[in-house]
Amino acid sequence: MAKRTYDTSHYIVPPPNLDQGLCKELRGVDQNGETAELFVINEKPLTLYLNSREVVTMMTIGDHPRLLALGFLANQAMLDKANPVTAVECDADIDVVVVRTANETDFEAKMRKRVRTSGCAQGTVFEAVMDAFETRSLGPIDAPFRTSWLYSLAAKINMTPSLYLEAGAIHGTVLCKEDRPLVYMEDVGRHNAVDKVAGWMVDTGTDGTDKILYTTGRLTSEMVIKAVMMGVPILVSRSGFTAAGVELARQAGLTLIGRARGKRFVALSGTERIVYDSDPGEISEEDPRHTRKGAHA
Amino acid sequence: MAKRTYDTSHYIVPPPNLDQGLCKELRGVDQNGETAELFVINEKPLTLYLNSREVVTMMTIGDHPRLLALGFLANQAMLDKANPVTAVECDADIDVVVVRTANETDFEAKMRKRVRTSGCAQGTVFEAVMDAFETRSLGPIDAPFRTSWLYSLAAKINMTPSLYLEAGAIHGTVLCKEDRPLVYMEDVGRHNAVDKVAGWMVDTGTDGTDKILYTTGRLTSEMVIKAVMMGVPILVSRSGFTAAGVELARQAGLTLIGRARGKRFVALSGTERIVYDSDPGEISEEDPRHTRKGAHA
Repeated sequence: MAKRTYDTSHYIVPPPNLDQGLCKELRGVDQNGETAELFVINEKPLTLYLNSREVVTMMTIGDHPRLLALGFLANQAMLDKANPVTAVECDADIDVVVVRTANETDFEAKMRKRVRTSGCAQGTVFEAVMDAFETRSLGPIDAPFRTSWLYSLAAKINMTPSLYLEAGAIHGTVLCKEDRPLVYMEDVGRHNAVDKVAGWMVDTGTDGTDKILYTTGRLTSEMVIKAVMMGVPILVSRSGFTAAGVELARQAGLTLIGRARGKRFVALSGTERIVYDSDPGEISEEDPRHTRKGAHA
Repeated sequence: MAKRTYDTSHYIVPPPNLDQGLCKELRGVDQNGETAELFVINEKPLTLYLNSREVVTMMTIGDHPRLLALGFLANQAMLDKANPVTAVECDADIDVVVVRTANETDFEAKMRKRVRTSGCAQGTVFEAVMDAFETRSLGPIDAPFRTSWLYSLAAKINMTPSLYLEAGAIHGTVLCKEDRPLVYMEDVGRHNAVDKVAGWMVDTGTDGTDKILYTTGRLTSEMVIKAVMMGVPILVSRSGFTAAGVELARQAGLTLIGRARGKRFVALSGTERIVYDSDPGEISEEDPRHTRKGAHA
């Protein structure tokens, strides 16, 4: 097990670590027929109820069921300021989380029309989400996003000890402000990771306008929708784009940056916010030991 | 657009190519503030009906709606030999595919219990699937899987022109026999890619027992379930494992090989089938120009 040498004290919420029992050590064989021991992520079902209605069962690493539940519902436009959350009850034994609101919600109406999207885990978008998406404001299009922040964030995030570095096969999403990573969530599906960040924002009343979302996952339509639902105007990924993701980002005025590795990146939407205050020629290529592979960029 | 120099005539179904209109060229800016033009995958909604019932709307690249529909239903245990498919109707204009069976299906019962899983796109598993999973046979545990096939397949697949090599941000699944890749499907979500392969097998009456599935996606529970539903005893990925995926593979006697890159791999289940007939020391590391990045292995 690698020793953690990187200081994560500047994180408000650092990534989980191996001691939390989120991994299992499994034994197999390698290419030489020799015994291989591997840390493998332990995914578990978590069933989410909104009041008395079962919404969904998700496979998750299980570190933040409360935040995952809140973030999922917020990003699905299933929460409503006029009907506040009164309690979130987690029952670790039976893998259930119940979110209670002051009044019953119009659950049936929201569930009626759903679109399965291309991403992981929670690739379902409800029509209500699209209605909410169209009313969200992401702040002024000329609020600066500095390339020096991007390079600094990538370097810090790559160096941060994480389940990814220990066990692989996991996605990460990091909420950042300027050049500071604040909240680093991981999960088997990239949607769970971003929903846990959203849950933390709901829980702490954090505004997204001056924030940046950094993700390891591809920039598909539902990742763009989630960023917009969270009110975060900048979405950065190591991975690539889909056309639907770009189209929605342009519609919402979201700054969408993909293929961000080492000195390189491509922005396909909201490029007005980008301030080039760094010389890419002075950014070193990533140290392979700390390089997080991008998924299919 | 890169010239295709690799012969794909040995494929029964080769990957789609750029000329099929599955990509869009989008313009943005790069790290130097210069114009960047990028091929980006075009995902579109496809709504699947089983007889008169709407099952799901998926985001897909749209190249094989018929096979995607058949494979999705087969892998979800929603097809039944006693109630054969009588027609598959695709309406490209309205992005709908309708699968008709001789008699109505017990759709409501199948939809009642569903589990959202950790993967992409179609991360939903029905209880009926788990019942079917437990009855599937994968053939003898001592049918050989040669490491020379694995190395040969990886080299051929990496060299095959694909949407991935052209545009990125896409998953691939390849049905193989011994050292020969036969059917190469790609899609935004890795589940769509594997379901299209399943649809091809249903459509052509192809048996899985002597086949190998090679995928770019992580080896999560639902990828394992799909391989078992397809009757394919060997599942290989460039990417990593989750604990639930390994557990299900061990339960089914599936040979599960992950982190397969260059000479390296790890097998965590069904290792009895592996025949070490290649010296890993003689396998060269992958040519970076043709290296497909693994997602989070």
